[in-house]
Amino acid sequence: MRALFALLLCVASAVSAQTLPSWNDGAAKRGIVEFVAAVTTKGGKDYVPPAQRIAVFDNDGTLWAEQPMYFQLLFAVDRVKAMAPQHPEWKEKEPYASLLRGDLKSATAGGEHALLELVAASHAGITTDEFEKLVRDWFASARHPRFKQPYRRMTYAPMVELLRYLRANGFKTYIVSGGGVEFMRVFAAQAYGIPPEQVIGTSGKQKFELRDGRPVLVKLPAVDFVDDKEGKPVNIQRTIGRRPLAAFGNSDGDLQMLQWTCAGAGARLCLFVHHDDAAREWAYDRQSSIGRFDKGLDEAQAKGWIVVSMKSDWKKIFSFEGAKP
Amino acid sequence: MRALFALLLCVASAVSAQTLPSWNDGAAKRGIVEFVAAVTTKGGKDYVPPAQRIAVFDNDGTLWAEQPMYFQLLFAVDRVKAMAPQHPEWKEKEPYASLLRGDLKSATAGGEHALLELVAASHAGITTDEFEKLVRDWFASARHPRFKQPYRRMTYAPMVELLRYLRANGFKTYIVSGGGVEFMRVFAAQAYGIPPEQVIGTSGKQKFELRDGRPVLVKLPAVDFVDDKEGKPVNIQRTIGRRPLAAFGNSDGDLQMLQWTCAGAGARLCLFVHHDDAAREWAYDRQSSIGRFDKGLDEAQAKGWIVVSMKSDWKKIFSFEGAKP
Repeated sequence: MRALFALLLCVASAVSAQTLPSWNDGAAKRGIVEFVAAVTTKGGKDYVPPAQRIAVFDNDGTLWAEQPMYFQLLFAVDRVKAMAPQHPEWKEKEPYASLLRGDLKSATAGGEHALLELVAASHAGITTDEFEKLVRDWFASARHPRFKQPYRRMTYAPMVELLRYLRANGFKTYIVSGGGVEFMRVFAAQAYGIPPEQVIGTSGKQKFELRDGRPVLVKLPAVDFVDDKEGKPVNIQRTIGRRPLAAFGNSDGDLQMLQWTCAGAGARLCLFVHHDDAAREWAYDRQSSIGRFDKGLDEAQAKGWIVVSMKSDWKKIFSFEGAKP
Repeated sequence: MRALFALLLCVASAVSAQTLPSWNDGAAKRGIVEFVAAVTTKGGKDYVPPAQRIAVFDNDGTLWAEQPMYFQLLFAVDRVKAMAPQHPEWKEKEPYASLLRGDLKSATAGGEHALLELVAASHAGITTDEFEKLVRDWFASARHPRFKQPYRRMTYAPMVELLRYLRANGFKTYIVSGGGVEFMRVFAAQAYGIPPEQVIGTSGKQKFELRDGRPVLVKLPAVDFVDDKEGKPVNIQRTIGRRPLAAFGNSDGDLQMLQWTCAGAGARLCLFVHHDDAAREWAYDRQSSIGRFDKGLDEAQAKGWIVVSMKSDWKKIFSFEGAKP
């Protein structure tokens, strides 16, 4: 009997080493594994049938990096530069003028409104098919300014493992992000294994048109829905129509999504990724303009949600670490 | 060799009898089966991997009946009657006054705008959880005025078979309807085997609120998005992010969805259900205020899309036919 017990311990420990291998053993990993065991164990009090196992992930700062600024904004900057010859008026008009002078700080000083204007203008006036091609081409050539990597490699290896681990346990994994839904769909399948129909995000208005009898969808320079803060649970309800079992974020923009998720009955998992590793990534939280993590940090501590230390919970952050660029 | 050929013919004919048993053999059924064979045959020129096999279905008039008026409107009428004691002003205000007098014709004479107002008012001011319960209770007790059946039994048996047949062939089946998304989700899983996250529809605005620290989503009396006509391809793009392979409708409100679907490359299937059976269901098309089928009928004939005659293509319409009520 004692031998059997020892054997079971060995098996458990071997399973643990294989599960989420980029995660150090500790409270964060243990919390995830225990939650998954609770909702997948048949006959257990917290068992949930596979069809109801919905997990939602913020993208910027949760699945991939978001510094020195949101990657989609860097795409918008490149688009504005490419479009500038057709828009001579931009030389005198903010935020374009600052941006074209290379002064990103002033260009984005107008806050969320200026960012949305920039994104709307640089993403509009083309069909959805044309936009997809532009984004695809940009991903193929653009490189991150600090790490000199293609952006699709700026994903967090432990989080990609976590997505896979949840799917292996019957979860349907969704992105629910402030980023543009059509921008994210171009890389989500390859980077995360998440199909287009499981990507939820900020959307622009579109118009259906027949051009020479051929239907197209044209992107208009107007915001349809901002998928951030209170908007996240609203968009989850509109698009998924079920309350998630698990929610993952990194900033105050994700707080309402986590509140909505963990207010459901039975076992729930709410987790914030905390950027505390300036050496391997970046360190920022309560004072940051990008990815501010202040109210969320307080509430996570008060409610006992998991706060992942990138520094101590993750063996590696990016898959390219240690490899040559 | 000749014997083998004869055997293969027998097998093919047996398969045909088992496939879509409520459909008569004819051009409509043949068109469906040939399309499915084309996109699922590996190595064939029209082969499509399962992940990309998206089929979209209108609901009212396509998957279930829509006469004498949209069933959701009958729910709204019952709601308005139940709410009337709290709204004395409705006695003087249209469309409520007509409706409360039992004059549905006048109440709905204001067209789409009046209907949306009625639906918005009768569906709002409560949380999403409360709304779901109201709809569930209504479905349990309400009966269709002509057939005296619960509304969940007003679905078309041949279409429910078609949904199942497509899913058995690797398709992901979606509802894309002018009906309210939260209304349809209450019955779509049971009636059609379609989970909430595959139901797309007209949506109302919602507000995230904390009530005594508990998050709720409150339904507001304002329309967010009308999922009809040009809105259908726009909402498909926003929610699914892929162009469907197959689209099914019954009215001009579905025309743009079919145009968008069948303008894609490779094999596509576009199909309209034509209401031409006044005995077993209803007969209406070009002149009808509900489910008008005029431009769509012209375009289907011009483009060679399938037009299903409910009278001659379907062995039965409702599953309860011949059964006692």
